Amino acid sequence: MTVGDLSEAALVARIQQHLPPPPAWMTVGIGDDAAVVEPVRNRLEVLTVDALVETVHFDRAFTPPSAIGHRALAVNLSDLAAMGATPRAALLSLAMPRTLPLADFDGIIEGLATAAARHRIHLAGGNLTATPGPLTIDVAVTGAVKPRRALQRGGARAGDELYLSGTIGAAAAALQMLKAGTPSAIAGRYLYPEPRLRLGSLLATNRAASACIDLSDGLADAVRRIAGASGVGAVIDEAAIPIDADARDWFARSSPDPVAAALTGGDDYELLFAVRPRTRRRLAAAIRHGGVPITRIGVCTADPALLLRSEAGDRPLPPGYSHFR
Amino acid sequence: MTVGDLSEAALVARIQQHLPPPPAWMTVGIGDDAAVVEPVRNRLEVLTVDALVETVHFDRAFTPPSAIGHRALAVNLSDLAAMGATPRAALLSLAMPRTLPLADFDGIIEGLATAAARHRIHLAGGNLTATPGPLTIDVAVTGAVKPRRALQRGGARAGDELYLSGTIGAAAAALQMLKAGTPSAIAGRYLYPEPRLRLGSLLATNRAASACIDLSDGLADAVRRIAGASGVGAVIDEAAIPIDADARDWFARSSPDPVAAALTGGDDYELLFAVRPRTRRRLAAAIRHGGVPITRIGVCTADPALLLRSEAGDRPLPPGYSHFR
Repeated sequence: MTVGDLSEAALVARIQQHLPPPPAWMTVGIGDDAAVVEPVRNRLEVLTVDALVETVHFDRAFTPPSAIGHRALAVNLSDLAAMGATPRAALLSLAMPRTLPLADFDGIIEGLATAAARHRIHLAGGNLTATPGPLTIDVAVTGAVKPRRALQRGGARAGDELYLSGTIGAAAAALQMLKAGTPSAIAGRYLYPEPRLRLGSLLATNRAASACIDLSDGLADAVRRIAGASGVGAVIDEAAIPIDADARDWFARSSPDPVAAALTGGDDYELLFAVRPRTRRRLAAAIRHGGVPITRIGVCTADPALLLRSEAGDRPLPPGYSHFR
Repeated sequence: MTVGDLSEAALVARIQQHLPPPPAWMTVGIGDDAAVVEPVRNRLEVLTVDALVETVHFDRAFTPPSAIGHRALAVNLSDLAAMGATPRAALLSLAMPRTLPLADFDGIIEGLATAAARHRIHLAGGNLTATPGPLTIDVAVTGAVKPRRALQRGGARAGDELYLSGTIGAAAAALQMLKAGTPSAIAGRYLYPEPRLRLGSLLATNRAASACIDLSDGLADAVRRIAGASGVGAVIDEAAIPIDADARDWFARSSPDPVAAALTGGDDYELLFAVRPRTRRRLAAAIRHGGVPITRIGVCTADPALLLRSEAGDRPLPPGYSHFR
């Protein structure tokens, strides 16, 4: 059976089987022209959309359907985390080849629904269409954040310290290992990334971060974007960068510049954020309850240069990765 | 020049050139991890998403780029109209072949931005990606509606009268003429459909409609969906159906059953709504200020049958069109 054997209504019914009952604040859910939701009192609303395209963002040869569904939602949740927002509602737009096996469709929905339940975001609606091209999944999400608490990219000043959650490089290394067919203990870091929602929310609530971004396109790209939006430069301490140990081993064998490979590898979905030194104590709650280790990796500078500093001297930060070009 | 020659940042900058300054309620607009907007006081929020896929929903051979952009937004605005909602914010997710001419990209954005300005909806963010497949445009929109005023599909009761805005068949006939290369006075009805936002808003504000839906998949499909959601049947008066005159001529020559062709042709984006006979006077404002003629075409019945009634007798309503199968 493929999705082309079923009507749109039958496919929507299969999606609904994976969903919990709609919350009370969702006045109208799936099945009408649009969904209707009650906004959260005294909160601003956060909106974002992200797409995964087969062969561009994932390869069905080694990405199980549940991972496709998980990632399609997680990349959006990571954007909410980077704004300090709490997830609310999601819209799913699926463009599917008619030959997509029904079991794969079910797996995608299962992966998305499991991640949604875990992070308390509710599917409010969506769109299903056939496509003669690759499987394309667009997810749009809404979240809520207190007024004047949203974390933006442009708030860093010279002297602010740069912090990173978790470790980097694992997703990019895992993707290379998956492509090469090499068994890998870190495959899950690529397949099932964990959005840092609790950390983002704590940073926002406590006004602990002056700027924040998620690492969808790698650390080097994230540093460049925070610096660009804030009008500062940055010096990153190479020895301080928390590169995942398995990724470090892999890149040491596979890459002429292992550090650059880890810095430019995408799909990590950690948070990079800036902290004013004199308000560093506001980080306490994020450190204790953020659910992920955080590491100081550098500092923002008045000089606009973006530098990687090591015992061997300074070198320019590697360029970021462009999904488009 | 094609879109593949530019970076994502350069393409985003081209989009911003077509946009007005963000409104005051948009605290964070394009360029951060997500947008931040102030909800409307004492309003519920309406959310929907719709996708256009090249070759499935449009053909670049006869659909100019501005029409692609216009339609991608208009189909979503039509869903807001069907809920009685006022447009607020839009998210645009574009998956583009790298070979898409830059002029086409600009045209798509221009068409979308022009429709957005006209209907006062503001682009809050989006996503750009390359695809090895067809041009795929996903637009998600938010709107606002007063509590307990949202128009739903499921509120019709036996005895409620069914009304239709505008005329039907023109978009489907125009699409056939465009495909055939036949010059057509009604090409714009397919290329630049007009969402019935004012009518939807008036129906909601005045509680004039007990149920409402837009005609994206044709009148027969819309009647079927309102009846199904409401648990009623319907009798449609064939002579009363306002079929566009040019479409009627076209279908008389091209189709063995011209009425069925008009009833099942999609892309009209008119509104079908049910009205309780004893509150019919609430329609006054919608008739006077809705911006489009409305016509009574039938009645909801306790008998679950869906019938098309004419002097020749009753026949079953034609089946709807499925975009998917």
